[in-house]
Amino acid sequence: MKNPLLAEYFFLQIAVILTTCRIVGIVARRFGQPQVVAEMIAGVCLGPSLLGLFFPELQAAIFPWDAKTRDSQSYIYPVSQLGLALYMFIVGMEFRLDIVRSQWKSAVAVSLAGMLSPFLLGGLLGLYFHGSTDLFPAGSTAWASAVFLGASMCITAFPMLARIIHFKGLNGTRMGTVAIGAGAIDDGCAWCLLAVVLSSIEKSPTAALKSIGGGIAFVLCVSLVLRPLLLRLERLLTRDGRLTEPGLVICLALMALGALTTDKLGLHAVFGGFIVGTAIPRGPMTGGVTEKAEPLTVALLLPMFFTFSGLNTKIGLLNTTSGWLMCLLVLLVAMIGKGVSCWLAARATGVPNREALGIGVLMNARGLMELIIINIGRERGLISDQLFAMLVIMAIATTLMASPIFDRLVGPTTPPASHP
Amino acid sequence: MKNPLLAEYFFLQIAVILTTCRIVGIVARRFGQPQVVAEMIAGVCLGPSLLGLFFPELQAAIFPWDAKTRDSQSYIYPVSQLGLALYMFIVGMEFRLDIVRSQWKSAVAVSLAGMLSPFLLGGLLGLYFHGSTDLFPAGSTAWASAVFLGASMCITAFPMLARIIHFKGLNGTRMGTVAIGAGAIDDGCAWCLLAVVLSSIEKSPTAALKSIGGGIAFVLCVSLVLRPLLLRLERLLTRDGRLTEPGLVICLALMALGALTTDKLGLHAVFGGFIVGTAIPRGPMTGGVTEKAEPLTVALLLPMFFTFSGLNTKIGLLNTTSGWLMCLLVLLVAMIGKGVSCWLAARATGVPNREALGIGVLMNARGLMELIIINIGRERGLISDQLFAMLVIMAIATTLMASPIFDRLVGPTTPPASHP
Repeated sequence: MKNPLLAEYFFLQIAVILTTCRIVGIVARRFGQPQVVAEMIAGVCLGPSLLGLFFPELQAAIFPWDAKTRDSQSYIYPVSQLGLALYMFIVGMEFRLDIVRSQWKSAVAVSLAGMLSPFLLGGLLGLYFHGSTDLFPAGSTAWASAVFLGASMCITAFPMLARIIHFKGLNGTRMGTVAIGAGAIDDGCAWCLLAVVLSSIEKSPTAALKSIGGGIAFVLCVSLVLRPLLLRLERLLTRDGRLTEPGLVICLALMALGALTTDKLGLHAVFGGFIVGTAIPRGPMTGGVTEKAEPLTVALLLPMFFTFSGLNTKIGLLNTTSGWLMCLLVLLVAMIGKGVSCWLAARATGVPNREALGIGVLMNARGLMELIIINIGRERGLISDQLFAMLVIMAIATTLMASPIFDRLVGPTTPPASHP
Repeated sequence: MKNPLLAEYFFLQIAVILTTCRIVGIVARRFGQPQVVAEMIAGVCLGPSLLGLFFPELQAAIFPWDAKTRDSQSYIYPVSQLGLALYMFIVGMEFRLDIVRSQWKSAVAVSLAGMLSPFLLGGLLGLYFHGSTDLFPAGSTAWASAVFLGASMCITAFPMLARIIHFKGLNGTRMGTVAIGAGAIDDGCAWCLLAVVLSSIEKSPTAALKSIGGGIAFVLCVSLVLRPLLLRLERLLTRDGRLTEPGLVICLALMALGALTTDKLGLHAVFGGFIVGTAIPRGPMTGGVTEKAEPLTVALLLPMFFTFSGLNTKIGLLNTTSGWLMCLLVLLVAMIGKGVSCWLAARATGVPNREALGIGVLMNARGLMELIIINIGRERGLISDQLFAMLVIMAIATTLMASPIFDRLVGPTTPPASHP
């Protein structure tokens, strides 16, 4: 058997993470922030940026980093990945393809605007920064810098967006569906772009082709093969209008296969879970899976994901005026490129102003997906630590502003009983 | 972020394990075996004993073992531990302390009989084997051999026993409660005994004292401090007779703390989850946690535990007549020491014969707890590979015989809809 010491840390970490998330959640709610933002902040608080800065020994006792026990933290990782995949699977099940179809103009327009505009603006900023600053490491090409900054501006906090929409009870509404549809397309495209950037560094164009072509093939397979198949099997997997236990297990196995497939394609496991979720027949099957899988996922597994990502983020500090000015520029480009252009695109396709603003604000939030993508960029030597810190600040700022603005637009909704 | 390759294996393994458990479950049901036994067998099938023997390359592709990717299998481990702790927590919540109190004579008698008799018989067998065979490695003392074989005979498959009782809808009945109560006590004592043996090898009696004294202190703390505290907090954690989301999170955090405590004490994390579960106030709180946490635990997380344990078991082969005779002797001692004596103890305290037989059969099943304890014994050099193989066969035989005999005694019960 494994070292029981590691299991020790594991349960300790679960207890600490759950408790911290709750406490931060109580504080965050006073500032109009949803629980998911609290979980993200809790992770940053427990990580090297706060707890590790002031109480390094305590931090090391709970989340050890040294070579001997470095495995202990990775115990949280699989649980967090499973939680995320399960959650996106549930979000996928609640995704109303029929509404996307009826709103396809808006969804396509918003997603195109949310891709092209931030990519172009981010790319131009990348070219400008590459020529005149030291925000990109020596040896990086202007092209790679422009594409990476462009791609990182395109990111939408897809899981967080889904969670806020779910939390506000907006699933199935026009605003919720357009935002989720456009968010899913944009996030998928951003990951494909990242694959292009990474493959261009490693000079293997096949990797990028695999991601893009494989992703399209996967979506076609799920919608043209899996979906009709499951509709036929629905009678076998339900009894008296309720999902059977084997039915639940089959759905979960399909979710794991979907996550595996997109992960193998170089996309994120998140998309596989989401896309397979959209193929589950609406009715007793989606209802049964949601009812059985959601409470534990949301209460226990998902906080591990949001906190784990925060735990691995070190917020560097910008200490010059020009640094802060450039940071402001990054933030402005991000907000105009994504938020404003998505709002305008929604307006242009006939969405009322309030809802269009809501869509823009939600699409603008970068959340943890941004942190994931810029961490990859830093690890691969695409951006400097200083630009990394700017992008972290941009991610946090766009995320924190989403919920209060959104609440003012839509009105604070009372969350359903099962979602605090 | 972590190597995405590992995440790949993780979701692949989840899909393979869930699918295999279902298929083996369909076959097992024809032979009167419950799903939990199917999950254990599925693990052995996927492990080095079957899949690895006939399709080593396929096995390596799904569950890689080599140095480079050896981490990938450990991804299943935390999920399996979390599932087990959650499950034992739920079992603890359903544990009827009031019935144990009314049946305390039977529970104590059965647990004493289930401890003393197999320990004495196993110890005598250990002394006999130690003197006349090579089943114990050179250099092992007669005392350690006797205590280890004695302790390994005392094991009850506590999680499996809980699962069978739960599955048969016997929670809260006299038979179910006596068996779970006695099983919990016996398993706890067996782990304490193991601590004594291990500390006697490492010549540190403090470790054994820590396990035993700490375990008693923990049980007292939970029942005298945590239980009354939670009864007072019940009003805060429920609303309109339903558990709130913060209430669920607090219960889960307590579960993790309990698992952490017993793990630190050198007992198994299982007991912490179980004991904290008994402290949750019966009613909306236990009902809420069960309803929200159980389906996903049983359908997704728990099969990972039962399969993971099987995956790590290599069934050696006994190839001499005397070996098989000794194996038969081990099996007889195990069955008489545990099953027969528990049956007699239950009868002696006034339990009707059918129920007493049921208790004996359930207590007799060794399940995976036995595999855990004998794996530790082999790793520490307490037993030879040959004796290890005999004990594996004993564990499997006593486990496989439990359900069919039990069904004949109690009658096959239709499982509730949520438990296949």
